[in-house]
Amino acid sequence: MSFSLIFRIQGFLLLFLGISMCLPSAVALCYREDALLSFLSAAVITILSGLCFILICPSSEKQITHREGFLIVSLGWIFAAFSGSLPFLFENTFSSFSDTYFETVSGFTTTGATVISNIEALPKSILFWRSMIQWLGGMGIILFSIAILPLLGIGGMQLYKAEVPGPVVEKLKPRIAETAKSLWKVYILLSLSETLLLLFGGMNLFDAVCHTFTTMATGGFSTRNNSIQSFQNPYIEVILIVFMFAAGINFSLHYRIFHGNIKSLWKNKEFVFYLSFLCICILLLTFSVQNTIYDNIFSSFRYTAFQATSIMTTTGYSTANFDTWPLFSKFILLILMFVGASAGSTGGGIKCIRILLILKMSYREIFYMVHPHAVASVKIGGRSIPENILRGVSGFVILYLLIFISGSFAMSLCGLDFITAISSVAASLGNIGPGLAGVGPYENYQFIPLAGKWILILMMLMGRLEIFTLLILFIPEFWKK
Amino acid sequence: MSFSLIFRIQGFLLLFLGISMCLPSAVALCYREDALLSFLSAAVITILSGLCFILICPSSEKQITHREGFLIVSLGWIFAAFSGSLPFLFENTFSSFSDTYFETVSGFTTTGATVISNIEALPKSILFWRSMIQWLGGMGIILFSIAILPLLGIGGMQLYKAEVPGPVVEKLKPRIAETAKSLWKVYILLSLSETLLLLFGGMNLFDAVCHTFTTMATGGFSTRNNSIQSFQNPYIEVILIVFMFAAGINFSLHYRIFHGNIKSLWKNKEFVFYLSFLCICILLLTFSVQNTIYDNIFSSFRYTAFQATSIMTTTGYSTANFDTWPLFSKFILLILMFVGASAGSTGGGIKCIRILLILKMSYREIFYMVHPHAVASVKIGGRSIPENILRGVSGFVILYLLIFISGSFAMSLCGLDFITAISSVAASLGNIGPGLAGVGPYENYQFIPLAGKWILILMMLMGRLEIFTLLILFIPEFWKK
Repeated sequence: MSFSLIFRIQGFLLLFLGISMCLPSAVALCYREDALLSFLSAAVITILSGLCFILICPSSEKQITHREGFLIVSLGWIFAAFSGSLPFLFENTFSSFSDTYFETVSGFTTTGATVISNIEALPKSILFWRSMIQWLGGMGIILFSIAILPLLGIGGMQLYKAEVPGPVVEKLKPRIAETAKSLWKVYILLSLSETLLLLFGGMNLFDAVCHTFTTMATGGFSTRNNSIQSFQNPYIEVILIVFMFAAGINFSLHYRIFHGNIKSLWKNKEFVFYLSFLCICILLLTFSVQNTIYDNIFSSFRYTAFQATSIMTTTGYSTANFDTWPLFSKFILLILMFVGASAGSTGGGIKCIRILLILKMSYREIFYMVHPHAVASVKIGGRSIPENILRGVSGFVILYLLIFISGSFAMSLCGLDFITAISSVAASLGNIGPGLAGVGPYENYQFIPLAGKWILILMMLMGRLEIFTLLILFIPEFWKK
Repeated sequence: MSFSLIFRIQGFLLLFLGISMCLPSAVALCYREDALLSFLSAAVITILSGLCFILICPSSEKQITHREGFLIVSLGWIFAAFSGSLPFLFENTFSSFSDTYFETVSGFTTTGATVISNIEALPKSILFWRSMIQWLGGMGIILFSIAILPLLGIGGMQLYKAEVPGPVVEKLKPRIAETAKSLWKVYILLSLSETLLLLFGGMNLFDAVCHTFTTMATGGFSTRNNSIQSFQNPYIEVILIVFMFAAGINFSLHYRIFHGNIKSLWKNKEFVFYLSFLCICILLLTFSVQNTIYDNIFSSFRYTAFQATSIMTTTGYSTANFDTWPLFSKFILLILMFVGASAGSTGGGIKCIRILLILKMSYREIFYMVHPHAVASVKIGGRSIPENILRGVSGFVILYLLIFISGSFAMSLCGLDFITAISSVAASLGNIGPGLAGVGPYENYQFIPLAGKWILILMMLMGRLEIFTLLILFIPEFWKK
């Protein structure tokens, strides 16, 4: 294991983050906020520590190995959250370091769980940074899930090896660079479009940029206490639905669409599943809240369509207090939390492609019962999926559920009620943000005991890094030789 | 599909059940109860319909095929529950047919969920029959899980092909007969010992026999309103713990022990897992109720040891209202509901061997992340498990969870609260009996709406028949050709 190489890369990451802190500094300057000093200090510290890492760890032409890849990615998120929390620490935004780190991890993992009760009372530059770390986290996750994940072979994501845009080369470094460039172009282009469309809907520039940041990252931090409900604007809701949905699509599909290949959308079985599953859930939700919560079918549709999209894409915005909806609706939302968005998007959860494969595998098991000597392969879009990938997928899903159970188990020791305990874990592991009951859309995570907050921090990181990337670091096998 | 053969076998089953109704008739006679007439009528009807089936469907030397096997087993449980419900119907024990069928299915599947509020008010002979159908169901499940399941190849249970006692012959019929004889000897012997030991503890003959029936079947019906708590007798609790635990062991292991092969117990990894998992949970439970529910460590241990054994073996007896225990304890009990007892026992749930394999497979996935090009096999007791069996096991577990989610989803439409909805499905699918909240140990299933009761009936049958046996009948593929 070349620690020198690993920390050199962290150095570059810190350098990049430090430089990006200039943007909230500019915001602080615009609004003449005292936070300017905090941002500048944080930027200087982050840039200097980045340079330290780069200078201490010499450059080498060595290729990054498989194992180093896991450590680079995991440490990347942990380091980013440390440096990202500096402005909050200097500003005393939160009462403790745990709260600060919770909020920053929730940001970088694009979860959106918050410990702040009165969001609107915070300085604009702090809110801007809070949204921006989600956008940066989203950028990181696109890179991770499309360029790195298929190479690390996590949970069946080798499937996407062939779908990565750019030249497919064996060497890790040039490929990542190439892929990153093309995907980030798409990410930035979509972000610009959203900002313009939100401005057009009457949102001010600050809110438009902040909400663009958190929509594209499927993060869900808002600049308002009542999230998107504050705007009471159907146009804005439609724009957000469209862009949340877009952010939940595999970004290599976006890349193809931008290159004129629109057909590839309908050929992609994951996209078709993602869209149809969402539509079915919206219909069921509309039916369940109609006459119990809303009298008007349009209102029912309006609020459930927004909420279902927000939860399935793992964004976490809210336009209604879904915690007061009937149990049946809450159950659908809970299922959506587990299903999540597409692989290769900024969304979290188990991911549609894995759910689709799991359903096909379950059907195959029943088929095998009828025809025990048949040889049946699981197909997606006419292509047979290799058995080792299927094994990886079911392994991932089972491990996801085991982590969910262990996490809920640990949270149940923190004195929470049952629904708060399990939904806080589901919402953190799936990188959604709000859960149900005590952590519902109109509540926050402030009251969770200290130990619980650190469990949820672990869950957010686990979920974001597709479980294996982080989990692997805890087994002795990884560190051997 | 030879329906003639299938219904001929159902005929023999009905004949057997009709004859076995003589026993509760004798009890009615002893206690001079009016129910005698109901039992005799039920016996006559069952015997006559059995004879009808046998006479109408001619005998044939044809071998039973794989597919006929599924239909015979599923229909067997459904028919048994119909004929078993006749005495209750004639006695007007329940207010509706749904309730009667719910209670009888709960009996034959050895679940133990009840719709009766005042158990002690019922005639003794009715209580006797209610316990006896659990014992008969237990007998059926031993045959099903050890002799038939490995041949049908459900969810990895081919593992046990080699472990079935008796001569291993290719033909289904003689093998089943041979296996059945040796296993039922063990079952009856264990039952006799338990009855004697309970009598020795001061229980009257009636209670001793009834509780033996429901312990050996891991059923959990009691003759008392407050289940085992009514006896307030530590000796009886210990005997029940021992026999519940024994009933949760694979009966082919019992068979070997009876033949002097005690070592086979410790060599059996499923047994070791079953024992250690239970012990760990008892320790955690003791720690969690100490000082919150009980002041005395002995009381904590006494009640948690009983409850953990009762839930893990899927019996469902109670000596304490665990619904008032802290969330952490309830979480452990909920996990035990899913883990369940050993394969080849009368217990339900996912089964220890599958959980053990799932854990080993999850570890292997992490191992594969570190060594992507290695070839690692999952081993149990030094023996490599074939990949198709592992695939079957993970398929089973995922399907079990999917059915649990779908069931809870359907129950959430019945106007129940979240914990009642999910725990009633977990307790029915796992064949445990009592759940939490509305269906807690001191409550019953009476208040569940009609649709909900039928959903739970389906869950009980699904769980008992290892999901596939019943599910397969719903796919068109099964009925083709």
